[in-house]
Amino acid sequence: MSDRVYLDWNATAPLRSEARAAMAAALDLSGNPSSVHAEGRQARRLVEEARAAVANAVRALPRNVVFTSGGTEANVLVLKPGLRHSTGPGTERLVVSAIEHPSVLAGGRFSPDMISAVGVTRSGVLDLDQLRAALDGKPPALVSIMLANNETGAVQPVPEAAEIVHAAGGILHVDAIQALGKIALDINVLKADLLTLSAHKIGGPQGAGAVVLAEGLQGFEPLLRGGGQELGRRAGTENVAGIAGFGAAVKAATGTLSDDAGRLEGLRNRLEQGLRQTSGMIVFSDDTKRLPNTILFTVPRLKAETAVIGFDLAGIAVSSGSACSSGKVQPSHVLEAMGFDPEIAQGAVRLSLGWSTSSADINRCLEAWRTLTGSLLKDSDETRLERF
Amino acid sequence: MSDRVYLDWNATAPLRSEARAAMAAALDLSGNPSSVHAEGRQARRLVEEARAAVANAVRALPRNVVFTSGGTEANVLVLKPGLRHSTGPGTERLVVSAIEHPSVLAGGRFSPDMISAVGVTRSGVLDLDQLRAALDGKPPALVSIMLANNETGAVQPVPEAAEIVHAAGGILHVDAIQALGKIALDINVLKADLLTLSAHKIGGPQGAGAVVLAEGLQGFEPLLRGGGQELGRRAGTENVAGIAGFGAAVKAATGTLSDDAGRLEGLRNRLEQGLRQTSGMIVFSDDTKRLPNTILFTVPRLKAETAVIGFDLAGIAVSSGSACSSGKVQPSHVLEAMGFDPEIAQGAVRLSLGWSTSSADINRCLEAWRTLTGSLLKDSDETRLERF
Repeated sequence: MSDRVYLDWNATAPLRSEARAAMAAALDLSGNPSSVHAEGRQARRLVEEARAAVANAVRALPRNVVFTSGGTEANVLVLKPGLRHSTGPGTERLVVSAIEHPSVLAGGRFSPDMISAVGVTRSGVLDLDQLRAALDGKPPALVSIMLANNETGAVQPVPEAAEIVHAAGGILHVDAIQALGKIALDINVLKADLLTLSAHKIGGPQGAGAVVLAEGLQGFEPLLRGGGQELGRRAGTENVAGIAGFGAAVKAATGTLSDDAGRLEGLRNRLEQGLRQTSGMIVFSDDTKRLPNTILFTVPRLKAETAVIGFDLAGIAVSSGSACSSGKVQPSHVLEAMGFDPEIAQGAVRLSLGWSTSSADINRCLEAWRTLTGSLLKDSDETRLERF
Repeated sequence: MSDRVYLDWNATAPLRSEARAAMAAALDLSGNPSSVHAEGRQARRLVEEARAAVANAVRALPRNVVFTSGGTEANVLVLKPGLRHSTGPGTERLVVSAIEHPSVLAGGRFSPDMISAVGVTRSGVLDLDQLRAALDGKPPALVSIMLANNETGAVQPVPEAAEIVHAAGGILHVDAIQALGKIALDINVLKADLLTLSAHKIGGPQGAGAVVLAEGLQGFEPLLRGGGQELGRRAGTENVAGIAGFGAAVKAATGTLSDDAGRLEGLRNRLEQGLRQTSGMIVFSDDTKRLPNTILFTVPRLKAETAVIGFDLAGIAVSSGSACSSGKVQPSHVLEAMGFDPEIAQGAVRLSLGWSTSSADINRCLEAWRTLTGSLLKDSDETRLERF
């Protein structure tokens, strides 16, 4: 697939060479990190080195990093009643933004009647007044707000939300899965009580993720019990190779972040300008701060699935909204929350770039788009679907 | 570590070359299996090929295989109230054998007051009369019985237990994690309603496992929600490389099972005969059917931790009971359930062999044991601990 152009990095990034090397080394070991012999201690060392790398990437303490099997497990693990600051009461309800990932919207271990959602603006940014109204004068809540949206790329006002949450006695969880490696990330600057991360969005392998706890958070309870691993916070033999790959990827991703981000933003902006040659072009969240690598767009009458298949046949991998729901054709809940009609929301196509995206890739994508618009937008609905 | 002898296969087996190759190929892909483009479809294909391989290994249907992050997640996932046959009522309590893995003893999603344990004989075999007594005339239960014990290797009377469980209207879960690849495994012969499996015990990678459901089982509910993966039974982007490695390993392990098992049993028996030269030698479960690769032994006055360290310094990786509790020094709950005194239980050392174990490895191990017994068993308790 060497002549393919991959523009679906927000779904899964290709594995970084650093991660591949770390995984190959880990796979050559035969130890269980819980074993006391030399083989076990070698495996343990790789896990702890990765833990230090992940902690360092978000300016947390290694002992507060809990490895999981990915972002979804991390989100489900943290979303539970009873989390509290050492002095405060436990939080018994969950408040989420309406644009969270499905694994957050599902509410983890909260019962559905204890979950409420806060809206976003038409730009896809959390409405802080709505957040305040959802918290003021009510029992303290666990609040879950993503740092950057996976579909639009819109960066959320997390430090501002943190002040509101903490003033109301609540706990803040920040799903930083799409933000990690794309923008600077410091748990202290965000004032988050819990962060969740995923390896495969930053060039680590699928199957590894982490929860990062702020120092002093109380009431954390494992989802997987029956083993002392991860200081009793996540039972089960560690995915040593996956964790080692995660550690190597996070080092690589955060080490070159400022260079990569500037370059990607330049390419992204050029791609966006090209797309805007199409009349009626809508780029979502283009009036707010976005991840430097993401474009979510549509034009009237576009059907996203048809466009994704058209791009694919032209050798270009793109996505219609998020890839997490296994081929289900549903309008994006993110765009619905932003107030767009279902018809518009069903037409949204996501282009997401990464460190190996080249200027030639951008040209290829724009060429393909020009060809596609010729067929996609001129025909009637009926003939369009037949063409692919 | 090429001059080391690894005899801790029940903790983690070295990665099989077939699994390494499958993982390398998977890691070269960049697709998310939920994406519809060519990269996504390639990743999806690897997952589905592995699913077919796992299903075939236990004679189940591919659609009834649910991939997880490992054996612990698989066990926690299946242990939930409400499982039922299509015609029966839901099971609202859990009955486990006293020698189950800690992830089963923890009881998954059952509240502690709904969990009861059934004892084993001094040979480490489930007491079927006790099982009958725990079920007869009581509300139907989910019953969890391992196929082979991870510490002693004792094979459990699962088909017999299945008849008792089903006659009482219950559901049978079989933790087959240590048995897979070591003895023949057929979900239909076992009459199990649920099986759990793990990749890293058979030469696949750490971080992959599976639940296998019998056709028609009702009441299964995901632990990780928020995504349509695994037919809605386990949300989260699939660990494609880990799953591909699992698939390759299970094919390799079951393909050569009858040859491997015979060879391993020969080596194991020679090792055991050698150990028996030590006076007072106790080999646990030696009067019942065991896995062909496992020896759990002790001699009076032996301290397992000291022995494990002694073996390690002699270049041999062995274990004191299970490795799943992260270095905690506790007497084996398995030997306690078998009626052995804590003092004996704290002295148990496990030797477990695998496909690359050689006759020379057995010689090295016996040499090391003879040297160790010279120091471990002649000295007083005080000087023994100082020596290592």
